[in-house]
Amino acid sequence: MRTAFYISDGTAITSEVFGHATLSLFPVEFNHKTIPFVETEEKAHQIKELINATAKRDGEKPLIFFTFVNYNLTEIISSANAVCYDFLTTYSEKIEKELNVAPVPKIHRTHSIHEKSYDFRIDAVNYALMNDDGGNIKNYGEADIILIGVSRSGKTPTSLYLALQYGIKAANYPITEDDLETEGLPKCLIPFKHKLFGLTIDPERLAAIRDRRMANSKYASIRQCRIEVREVEMLYKRSRIPFLNSTHHSVEEISAKIISDTDLERRKY
Amino acid sequence: MRTAFYISDGTAITSEVFGHATLSLFPVEFNHKTIPFVETEEKAHQIKELINATAKRDGEKPLIFFTFVNYNLTEIISSANAVCYDFLTTYSEKIEKELNVAPVPKIHRTHSIHEKSYDFRIDAVNYALMNDDGGNIKNYGEADIILIGVSRSGKTPTSLYLALQYGIKAANYPITEDDLETEGLPKCLIPFKHKLFGLTIDPERLAAIRDRRMANSKYASIRQCRIEVREVEMLYKRSRIPFLNSTHHSVEEISAKIISDTDLERRKY
Repeated sequence: MRTAFYISDGTAITSEVFGHATLSLFPVEFNHKTIPFVETEEKAHQIKELINATAKRDGEKPLIFFTFVNYNLTEIISSANAVCYDFLTTYSEKIEKELNVAPVPKIHRTHSIHEKSYDFRIDAVNYALMNDDGGNIKNYGEADIILIGVSRSGKTPTSLYLALQYGIKAANYPITEDDLETEGLPKCLIPFKHKLFGLTIDPERLAAIRDRRMANSKYASIRQCRIEVREVEMLYKRSRIPFLNSTHHSVEEISAKIISDTDLERRKY
Repeated sequence: MRTAFYISDGTAITSEVFGHATLSLFPVEFNHKTIPFVETEEKAHQIKELINATAKRDGEKPLIFFTFVNYNLTEIISSANAVCYDFLTTYSEKIEKELNVAPVPKIHRTHSIHEKSYDFRIDAVNYALMNDDGGNIKNYGEADIILIGVSRSGKTPTSLYLALQYGIKAANYPITEDDLETEGLPKCLIPFKHKLFGLTIDPERLAAIRDRRMANSKYASIRQCRIEVREVEMLYKRSRIPFLNSTHHSVEEISAKIISDTDLERRKY
């Protein structure tokens, strides 16, 4: 199998996203290898040797996706027996022409603690944990958004993703059978109705997820899941709470849709 | 201020990473705007109008970073009054030549629930939550890694990041004063010594973080922080636990370093 390397003087997250997005267009399998923090010429020479050895072993030149700030490191890696793709240099030149401003390369530009949003993101993670699963209903004044839904409809991973990636303070509150019996919103949520966003899920998928947690229980039965999902969707409609069905969507997709539907302010770009 | 748009028929996460990495090289501020899920020609025409209105308002052409699978959508957005950067097409053509394989574009290629690793990632998030802060010391057999460190040294956000991004099951265990008095590893960790990874932090930074949580407490005093940090670092060295100092690093950087130092198997690329 051919090897794809993602190499950088930082985390290599950018090179991975770039390489992965491009390679995923092709019906070809690769052996993926990420090498972050290649910050010295000595380390770059070691990695060049590793690339050359990989080319020999595979019988094919590896594909290299890299992002370096230091041009000497670019040169060393580019001289390896491989095919290199350097989108940062390519596009930086194009954008320099457009902006008529010279680039000022700094190491660890992205994905570092020096981003303005970093402390917001860590605060938001702590907030999401403290306010997970209806844990602390006193802090909803601070929330940017409050996700609601029946147990296991995807609230927790979505709250954490919104916090970690975007610095959005997301609380989440489970709508229980008792809540559904009263037919209105739980009392503690009423003052924060403008911050509520509902998640729903197909009953079959919900039953499968619950069954992995508590096999053969009433909680996981398809009948119970159907009742809860039907009632929670009625609650959303009656109370005019925006909602989406998480069944076929990843946390990335759910988060992107929520942000786009609500105009939530992101603290990180 | 000039506007930068990130547009896609999916989450637009890839276009954001691409655009952000490139623009961050320049000492210029932009008004950032992400538009995900532009999946129909009708929606693309609406967005084209929005771009044109923005160009008029700003008095400058917006910069557009986009990734589309459907070529008709590419054409509509490209005809707006803007400067468009389409790295996916550029690099897909280069890679097609190298691989001698035609691309098979699929919508929602990346960041979707259809990635093989998706269920692993959600399981890992649930695992990280159940095993946060020494919460459930019975499940360490399942852990891929167990982060240890004094209170507020960065264990929880790192565990969640490893889980959400990479599907790595990361437990975390707080090393308390009582643990430090015994001078050895806490008993429950000894059978899992090979999975341990230590975090440490500069005492000044630790005191500042703890003070935000519990102002003017002994817990947040610089004296207490110095003692705990000195003793936990001695513990790591004595027990030969690999460790790193989180003070100047983001969760992205800490996670990338841990994976690269330990050869942890990632479930997502």
